[in-house]
Amino acid sequence: MLRAGVDLGGTKIQVAILDPDGNVVGQCRIPTPQDAGPPGVLTAIVTAVRSAMLDAQAETSDLMGVGLGAPGQIDHAAGTVSHAGNLPDWLGTVAVTSVLRDALGVPIELANDVQVGIMAESKLGAGRPYSSLLGIFCGTGVGGGVVLNDTLWLGRGAAGEIGHMVVVPNGEKCPCGRRGCLEAYAGRSAMEIEARRRVKHGHKTDLFHIMQHKGRDRLASGVWAKALAQQDKMAKQLIHRAEWAVGIAAASAVNLLDVEAVIIGGGLGCRLGPPFVDRIRESMMPHLILPERPPQVLVAALGDLGGATGAALLVEHTVSPPGDLATVTDPDE
Amino acid sequence: MLRAGVDLGGTKIQVAILDPDGNVVGQCRIPTPQDAGPPGVLTAIVTAVRSAMLDAQAETSDLMGVGLGAPGQIDHAAGTVSHAGNLPDWLGTVAVTSVLRDALGVPIELANDVQVGIMAESKLGAGRPYSSLLGIFCGTGVGGGVVLNDTLWLGRGAAGEIGHMVVVPNGEKCPCGRRGCLEAYAGRSAMEIEARRRVKHGHKTDLFHIMQHKGRDRLASGVWAKALAQQDKMAKQLIHRAEWAVGIAAASAVNLLDVEAVIIGGGLGCRLGPPFVDRIRESMMPHLILPERPPQVLVAALGDLGGATGAALLVEHTVSPPGDLATVTDPDE
Repeated sequence: MLRAGVDLGGTKIQVAILDPDGNVVGQCRIPTPQDAGPPGVLTAIVTAVRSAMLDAQAETSDLMGVGLGAPGQIDHAAGTVSHAGNLPDWLGTVAVTSVLRDALGVPIELANDVQVGIMAESKLGAGRPYSSLLGIFCGTGVGGGVVLNDTLWLGRGAAGEIGHMVVVPNGEKCPCGRRGCLEAYAGRSAMEIEARRRVKHGHKTDLFHIMQHKGRDRLASGVWAKALAQQDKMAKQLIHRAEWAVGIAAASAVNLLDVEAVIIGGGLGCRLGPPFVDRIRESMMPHLILPERPPQVLVAALGDLGGATGAALLVEHTVSPPGDLATVTDPDE
Repeated sequence: MLRAGVDLGGTKIQVAILDPDGNVVGQCRIPTPQDAGPPGVLTAIVTAVRSAMLDAQAETSDLMGVGLGAPGQIDHAAGTVSHAGNLPDWLGTVAVTSVLRDALGVPIELANDVQVGIMAESKLGAGRPYSSLLGIFCGTGVGGGVVLNDTLWLGRGAAGEIGHMVVVPNGEKCPCGRRGCLEAYAGRSAMEIEARRRVKHGHKTDLFHIMQHKGRDRLASGVWAKALAQQDKMAKQLIHRAEWAVGIAAASAVNLLDVEAVIIGGGLGCRLGPPFVDRIRESMMPHLILPERPPQVLVAALGDLGGATGAALLVEHTVSPPGDLATVTDPDE
């Protein structure tokens, strides 16, 4: 039996099909429809799952269930996604599980996209050797997750907000409205606002030329990577500031939790890779209470497929295929 | 059967005897001998345990085991305590378990003093209604502990160092040698150094007069409390700075872990009580990602007996009385 995982983002929908051993045997990636609202997005998800099953050369009847990682606030019991500002016209609370279940005829599991990505890294990626880790995913914002005893620690449902640990009291304005959060320094939205502010004040940078040249309207991770490669001064300053801030938040979290590893992911983490992670480690080290025994600091290993892979893992244990009530065996255990 | 708990500090040894229901049925408090080194301290512990058993009107044969909470670095397997700078002449690594076991004839359990105090608050004190909490103990330094699923999270053995979360990057010097840690703002040692520095620069305060009047050579918690009651300006500034810093670190930790409660303890926390805790809450709130659903912020409830009570809890489950290999039943479960 196969499991499908869907990583639903503001710009793309990525699907991965996993075999019982956790191998990706099929995939599909399509742009997120921008002009048909939530119904358009849900229809696109159904299409993408079917395409990925074709890519896996499998029948729909081989599908055990679909896991979906979505941004915003997830109500697992109600099967709804709300406050997903990154998704087009996603106003209020949208019923997701029921619509997808009716269309695909299999059970649907919902979870937060970042948490899903971090569980994928923990079970199949860079975190596989460790039972405790901290995931820091630098993308548009900064998401995070805490894995303890191989399990995502959810707290009262909202744990993992490392992006809103305070790095500088009364510091830079964060997209969340507060001040001094990690995300105010290491999230792409905040970094772009700061770059635009500096340009307005007469500072020079190639960031926005590179953006236009790439046909983008945002400073995507690839834009930052290219500007760094060109030794763009402002890009270097803002990326170094992000590394500094991630290192400080990571040190605080490690002093508190003494985890074995810190996994750096997200668009920025995966795109900038080892040099980014090395400088985060350098920023973290002076603040560790036990510097002689630091955690491993690693780049997320699953890259763009991490979210979809992790979403597929949501299906294990929790659902049985329709008409088959036998316990589903977890291939990892 | 009774359990004894010993809270070993630099100035006092506090013993509590617990009955099977967790009630304190006997106690003893003596000064820590300052001039006989570790052997003198260990002899004093034995004497104090015997006195507390007398106070409980019990026989030594009623004693199931002794738990000891000690400062410094604990090697549970080896039964040793090292790096305990607060204990008189405690150089290198000192064998504790074997000496006490030979003298008292019962199993000995060792753990870190702050962790023991936080477990006591979790099981019997202010944290009793909650399964996840953060303990922040402001004393000479700032110790901490993270309780998740009713269990102290130890990480790789050194978790809970909330005192060394970074509150102000490149901020005040911390007794640990780093900069900007919470302890640099909210630990009594650091606060006293700052008060002395300000006096040297011509600032006025009654703190040191109160200290002398009380016959102390350190700014103990009671000195701070008295100065606050007298509206001493410097004392107010430094205490408010401590509250501000604890609130910021607590907010970061809550955003990361989404625990149900934050328990404020230690000499300063217990002495200054609700007003101190209320101002910590005020400092924390603006940084919470979910301010509409904050954790409870509470004063530790067990006061001076918390450490000894928690140490006694170490005995449960883990040891059997000599000559009796039957499973010890935990009265709390």
